[in-house]
Amino acid sequence: MSEGDPGDKYFDSSISDRERAIFEGGITLGALYHQFIGTPIGDKETLESAIEESALSQPYIIESDVKIVEIEKEGRSQYSYTELSGKSLQISLISKYGEAKVEMELREIPELDYPLMLVKKIF
Amino acid sequence: MSEGDPGDKYFDSSISDRERAIFEGGITLGALYHQFIGTPIGDKETLESAIEESALSQPYIIESDVKIVEIEKEGRSQYSYTELSGKSLQISLISKYGEAKVEMELREIPELDYPLMLVKKIF
Amino acid sequence: MSEGDPGDKYFDSSISDRERAIFEGGITLGALYHQFIGTPIGDKETLESAIEESALSQPYIIESDVKIVEIEKEGRSQYSYTELSGKSLQISLISKYGEAKVEMELREIPELDYPLMLVKKIF
Amino acid sequence: MSEGDPGDKYFDSSISDRERAIFEGGITLGALYHQFIGTPIGDKETLESAIEESALSQPYIIESDVKIVEIEKEGRSQYSYTELSGKSLQISLISKYGEAKVEMELREIPELDYPLMLVKKIF
Repeated sequence: MSEGDPGDKYFDSSISDRERAIFEGGITLGALYHQFIGTPIGDKETLESAIEESALSQPYIIESDVKIVEIEKEGRSQYSYTELSGKSLQISLISKYGEAKVEMELREIPELDYPLMLVKKIF
Repeated sequence: MSEGDPGDKYFDSSISDRERAIFEGGITLGALYHQFIGTPIGDKETLESAIEESALSQPYIIESDVKIVEIEKEGRSQYSYTELSGKSLQISLISKYGEAKVEMELREIPELDYPLMLVKKIF
Repeated sequence: MSEGDPGDKYFDSSISDRERAIFEGGITLGALYHQFIGTPIGDKETLESAIEESALSQPYIIESDVKIVEIEKEGRSQYSYTELSGKSLQISLISKYGEAKVEMELREIPELDYPLMLVKKIF
Repeated sequence: MSEGDPGDKYFDSSISDRERAIFEGGITLGALYHQFIGTPIGDKETLESAIEESALSQPYIIESDVKIVEIEKEGRSQYSYTELSGKSLQISLISKYGEAKVEMELREIPELDYPLMLVKKIF
């Protein structure tokens, strides 16, 4: 099955719906991380909403949930604002292409000590 | 006069309050532009608020107003979302250091055909 | 087959090598696009190299080729430098996970009038 | 004195050459920081060159020197690449407008525990 998108014909024709949903979700995780890392955090909830809505504007992303966690102010002065770091950004996305739905996440894994982008569940 | 910030002693001691306010505002204009350009736009108002609050978290910025204007969807499909471009981003900031207040802007200048960062008024 | 990476156990166990290679490549395309769009272009070749090497530092990316095309200076003054735009960035990547190799691209598609990220060939 | 740039007339007419040089340098420091923070580091020297050249493409920036220092790989696997952090980026710039030259820096200040953008010397 296909979504009938005009861009589809540029893809390898052997690509499955699962694979396409995974591709679109991977793009979105990479995009959000590198777009927003470093952002000076004013209001946490507003920035979470802006990232969630940015995710939903991307093709085939049907659900998104963003949390900014464990932020600590750096420094001790006027300059002590906080920038969004990879460790403090948690993203959960669902992408859907044709019959396939895929749940993906970005989150800091303490055991690994870095923020991992992962395919959590393929429906 | 000085704000007594612990970072002050690293600055050239001849710098005036006006100059410092201009410096901090220039940093913020450059930061916001390069942080947010390319962001996929979900909800315009939420993104405007996130950028405004990001500005206010920066040192010595006391007012900010952000407008996203003239956005056009590119393309004709699932992919036809909009990314924040330099031409569509308008920022107005006021920075204050000691007795000096400075109003700065980023906006597309039709005559010049590019987004100009400018010092509008020094109080 | 698996690559034996410590992050693997966080993935849905039904994910295939093909799917994992596609996921990692999708992340990298999204990351590069949103990291580098808006960069003021000094020397084109140096920036192309920096983006290529950035791609190769990402997990499971084994080949990358980056071209910056069709750049036009905006404006008519000191300010008339060029920023990297989505339309002028071309990326070709190969990711490899286990036995699967996948070729992916980012390029402006004139028919669609936007930069498309696509899975060109699955080996 | 003025540089005769077509954008000049949009500025507060009381702005001095010193102030204008400080403004342009501040913009560039903020721009470089927020453009490049988060970049996956492939080859350190190539990325340093790309940032330097990006600085020189900005209006009124006549010298730039960039160093990436103290990078540590995070994690212990395929994913253990390094992203450019604020603490590891050092930038030195000279801006010139009319008769004024200004030296500016971005560097981590251990005493403050954050990366400070500062006006080092006004000539």
